[in-house]
Amino acid sequence: MQAQSRVIIENVRPNLENGRYYAKGVHNDPFTVTADIFADGHDIINAHLLYMVAGKKKWLEVPFNFLGNDAWSATFILSSRHYFDYKVEAWIDYALTWHSGLIKKLEAGLQVAVELQDGLEHLRFLAKQKLDSAQKNYIKTCISLIESSKWEEASAELKNGPVEAIIRQFPEKRFKTEFDAGLQVYADREKAVFSTWYEFFPRSSSATKGVHGTFKDCEKLLPRIAEMGFDTLYFPPVHPIGYQERKGKNGSTKALSDDVGSPWAIGAPEGGHKDLLPQLGTLADFKSLINSAKELGIELAMDFALQAAPEHPYVQTHPSWFKWRSDGTVQYAENPPKKYQDILPIYFETPDHEALWEELVSIATYWVDQGIRVFRVDNPHTKPFHFWQHLIIEVKKHHNDVIFLSEAFSRPRIMEGLAKAGFTQSYSYFTWRNTKFEFIEYLTELTKTERKDYMRANFWPNTPDINPYHLQGANDTVHLIRLFLAATLSSNYGIYGPVFEQMISDAIPGKEEYLDSEKFELKHYDWAKRNRITAHITLLNQLRKENKALQRTNNIEFCAIENQQILAYFKADRHTENYILAVVNFDANNAQSGWVQLPLSQMGIAADETFTVHDLISENSYFWKGEWNFVELRPPGLPYHLFKIKKV
Amino acid sequence: MQAQSRVIIENVRPNLENGRYYAKGVHNDPFTVTADIFADGHDIINAHLLYMVAGKKKWLEVPFNFLGNDAWSATFILSSRHYFDYKVEAWIDYALTWHSGLIKKLEAGLQVAVELQDGLEHLRFLAKQKLDSAQKNYIKTCISLIESSKWEEASAELKNGPVEAIIRQFPEKRFKTEFDAGLQVYADREKAVFSTWYEFFPRSSSATKGVHGTFKDCEKLLPRIAEMGFDTLYFPPVHPIGYQERKGKNGSTKALSDDVGSPWAIGAPEGGHKDLLPQLGTLADFKSLINSAKELGIELAMDFALQAAPEHPYVQTHPSWFKWRSDGTVQYAENPPKKYQDILPIYFETPDHEALWEELVSIATYWVDQGIRVFRVDNPHTKPFHFWQHLIIEVKKHHNDVIFLSEAFSRPRIMEGLAKAGFTQSYSYFTWRNTKFEFIEYLTELTKTERKDYMRANFWPNTPDINPYHLQGANDTVHLIRLFLAATLSSNYGIYGPVFEQMISDAIPGKEEYLDSEKFELKHYDWAKRNRITAHITLLNQLRKENKALQRTNNIEFCAIENQQILAYFKADRHTENYILAVVNFDANNAQSGWVQLPLSQMGIAADETFTVHDLISENSYFWKGEWNFVELRPPGLPYHLFKIKKV
Repeated sequence: MQAQSRVIIENVRPNLENGRYYAKGVHNDPFTVTADIFADGHDIINAHLLYMVAGKKKWLEVPFNFLGNDAWSATFILSSRHYFDYKVEAWIDYALTWHSGLIKKLEAGLQVAVELQDGLEHLRFLAKQKLDSAQKNYIKTCISLIESSKWEEASAELKNGPVEAIIRQFPEKRFKTEFDAGLQVYADREKAVFSTWYEFFPRSSSATKGVHGTFKDCEKLLPRIAEMGFDTLYFPPVHPIGYQERKGKNGSTKALSDDVGSPWAIGAPEGGHKDLLPQLGTLADFKSLINSAKELGIELAMDFALQAAPEHPYVQTHPSWFKWRSDGTVQYAENPPKKYQDILPIYFETPDHEALWEELVSIATYWVDQGIRVFRVDNPHTKPFHFWQHLIIEVKKHHNDVIFLSEAFSRPRIMEGLAKAGFTQSYSYFTWRNTKFEFIEYLTELTKTERKDYMRANFWPNTPDINPYHLQGANDTVHLIRLFLAATLSSNYGIYGPVFEQMISDAIPGKEEYLDSEKFELKHYDWAKRNRITAHITLLNQLRKENKALQRTNNIEFCAIENQQILAYFKADRHTENYILAVVNFDANNAQSGWVQLPLSQMGIAADETFTVHDLISENSYFWKGEWNFVELRPPGLPYHLFKIKKV
Repeated sequence: MQAQSRVIIENVRPNLENGRYYAKGVHNDPFTVTADIFADGHDIINAHLLYMVAGKKKWLEVPFNFLGNDAWSATFILSSRHYFDYKVEAWIDYALTWHSGLIKKLEAGLQVAVELQDGLEHLRFLAKQKLDSAQKNYIKTCISLIESSKWEEASAELKNGPVEAIIRQFPEKRFKTEFDAGLQVYADREKAVFSTWYEFFPRSSSATKGVHGTFKDCEKLLPRIAEMGFDTLYFPPVHPIGYQERKGKNGSTKALSDDVGSPWAIGAPEGGHKDLLPQLGTLADFKSLINSAKELGIELAMDFALQAAPEHPYVQTHPSWFKWRSDGTVQYAENPPKKYQDILPIYFETPDHEALWEELVSIATYWVDQGIRVFRVDNPHTKPFHFWQHLIIEVKKHHNDVIFLSEAFSRPRIMEGLAKAGFTQSYSYFTWRNTKFEFIEYLTELTKTERKDYMRANFWPNTPDINPYHLQGANDTVHLIRLFLAATLSSNYGIYGPVFEQMISDAIPGKEEYLDSEKFELKHYDWAKRNRITAHITLLNQLRKENKALQRTNNIEFCAIENQQILAYFKADRHTENYILAVVNFDANNAQSGWVQLPLSQMGIAADETFTVHDLISENSYFWKGEWNFVELRPPGLPYHLFKIKKV
């Protein structure tokens, strides 16, 4: 920066901890950068956003637009799945300042001979640029008119001709100010922001009660998953399970001989993280499953759980990867209040950490090589942030389509820290949000603060670890409400089934834990069962696919409605003019009604114009008019509306 | 940072644009740094704030305190008037983690032989530190008890002895994380935050009507200024005034032969910025005035107005410091909508900018050498931000007591940009804030957002440039209300007199400009006049000196009161237990009342405890009890309360 640079660039956003972390975008989506840009005095300033795929040599430029109050914004399209660098340049535009002053004087009917001559330096600069022939002729004409003192003709040319556009196309950028903090954005594939997850335990997939399920059994269930509209199928770990310290039913520390143990206790004489539990099948079976799923539009998501059962091969081959106590033991893992006696934590700070980290990265790349592109990462908040940053960067170097979901239910700064470290998606507090106020507060925090630049929440009504109080013993209407909230508030959501849709909600008394949890035992389900919940799952997932507005989370806007039991929100996809109004009644037992306010101007609907709202759930249509319209929701038949809004 | 560093440090505050600008503090005041500090897992973390006077070699350390929700804070005293560097270090405290685990197991009555042996490495580390002899004996005892397997005695020592304090005193800081963004804070002298300004035109100081006032006349007025309690006397420019293009009365572009011109049109055959207007007196007279003022506790503040009348010596000696147009003229200065035909702007971007900037800095240092320590800088927003940053740093290098007041009435980002560039104080929007909502919003923005770290507002009810609508033709009660608001909301305030206290408020119709403005003509005042306003000025300035709570602005807290005409605010100085409640009625014509809520717990007053409030204005005292108490204000006699709160 030169002393003569007069423009100040501040408050550039997205900017996470001054470029320490990259922001997140989506391939083919626009990416918008805002900044405060200002200078002393009253000269005209201008600014460009410069960007390029990281590692390239040539910056591309896009002009900033003035928003008012010294704020500016610029947008470019994330045209490939890569990291993009971006920086800001701004300058006093002496040429625009000159031209604007000239026009003002002309409009005031003043003499402009001096102004015209003052402009020669700017016109001569333009004459030297790579103009097209029309531009070249025009600029030459302006110069020669001034040089021959033809003030009136010169004035007319400069007033009516394209000089301002040419100046903007070829800015002098004299004494420009640059803001370059090494900022980056990563363009993920679409699934990073729009994904629909189904989780089940592959060992419970057998059609025969008491028999350990296999990958082949799982393959038979795929049509059902696809029919319900899920695009991501997540399995708890599929690796050999430790025998020593194996957990029994309900997490008992004393396992019986036929107990199958927790799949998160990875590692046994049969192998470790790069091996499969023999009961589930072979690598060939697994790859066949991956491929069959892919044909049905489903990606298989693996669990990435970095810990070792006591017989894990690493314990023998790499004892330095564990922290040994003075009695020759390793302290088992904990995630208070939970104790994992069947698991040894990895010692990430080991002096041998380079080899350790390399091996751990190689686990991910091994499964990527087998066809996996989605990982659900177990308890990442109990492993170092820098490790995740390293792992995700390393994996993305060769496979820019890999998605990492952070399974951390922890404190806000920890959850955010993991998202900043690079996780593509994050489990969220959705599971514990219940009231209208809580949802508005939480979604506002996720979508209207800096979190929108890096954190993509995934909403789960339940998980094997969380059987929330409000679902315990709850009827199907309550389940539907939670399903609807997850599927329409957030473009990323998932359920743990068939527990969810079959309303299996028995709990350990006083806890949000499933009784007889599948985490510790084989289960047998009637996989063919259909009910009102599976019908709504199928419908909602179909509607998510058909309506672009439901494929993003950050586009949410809450609508005023004077009833604390009703939550109403609007989502828009301007490109396809897809406008959705969701209205949901938290009261599963009583009819609730109210007047809901719509942001009409965003849809280009006039205040006195009639428009239609079509309920995609009930298939009923209504004519509405004006900002405020009446809604009534009568459970159990109609706990929510999902209106598609159209101009008549 | 090492790969093994597990602690994350984020959101360190103050941090202005990642260290581009320094934060501001006050000599002898505490300076508090906050940060989000967290790590994976459940180990105990610890953190230090490191600081030193900039340029020194040795960091001093102070521990961070945990505030909750992963936020931490640390405080040190700004012990000298300098820039201080600061940075943050944080680490997993393996020793504290070990000790805390040991204590938990002991309290649960478990065996701890392994834990004790695991602790040996930490105890041996401590044994090597610079312990005092008691500490050394204690640590040696602990080690030898463990080494000789005396588990019970070792446990007792480690549970009841001072081991935790010793660990905290000598942290291992293994794999520490450092946050060092080159952050700085500047410790200004007290006057930077607590100052009481009076402005008058020295040329209007003569006792004889029609005679040009002199520095000697001004000297005679000093006792009156001191008696009213002002500590800073600001004069518009005192330099030779240009003749060519001189402005006439009311800013007319045609001056009459006896017109004195605007003092901001600096430069004439008699000299430039380092010279004095001969009619005011000699340099000796000026220095005598500075010294006499100093004896009365008043500092003289000079105007620093970087522009030149057409006859300024610079125009001849350094033509390259002005931007010449093709007709050999320089475009006169503008601050739209104002036009300054009598002033040429300096060309800061000149190729000769190094010599220019050096000369401009030398103007400031010249006057510093004559005894000036306070500058009110004219229209800084029409000169480059980088120049101000340069000037202020250069001047402070040798004179760390110099104060710069930014006279910019511009857009928010511009005003903030100047404050970040280094201005000690800033003119503010106070002059145009009128309603309760506006004051709460504005003071909240100034004192509860990042602005509190760098921007110190100065509240002026009027200036020669602003005769606000609400004072035009207003009675003394309205003037008192504006005075009270300025003097008690802000610890820095000033008035332009004797215009203010003599309620001279005739305006150019429809404008906030004084009619027959002193900017363009000599005035004659009855300097001895005393009235209700001078009495309240004297009293309020006295109360500001006596009550520490009024000597800061950022300590303000607004109190609830259900009356839109009454504003109530609380200010505390905890060190001296000085608690002030200000209550002001915006309605100058009618009595207004309401129940005001006090933050009792901050004063250590219980909910059912009786306390006294003593009105420092009326001298009345009341007994109050509980959070909510009744106030009534009856203008004109009693437009405001200034209560001092005391426990009985």
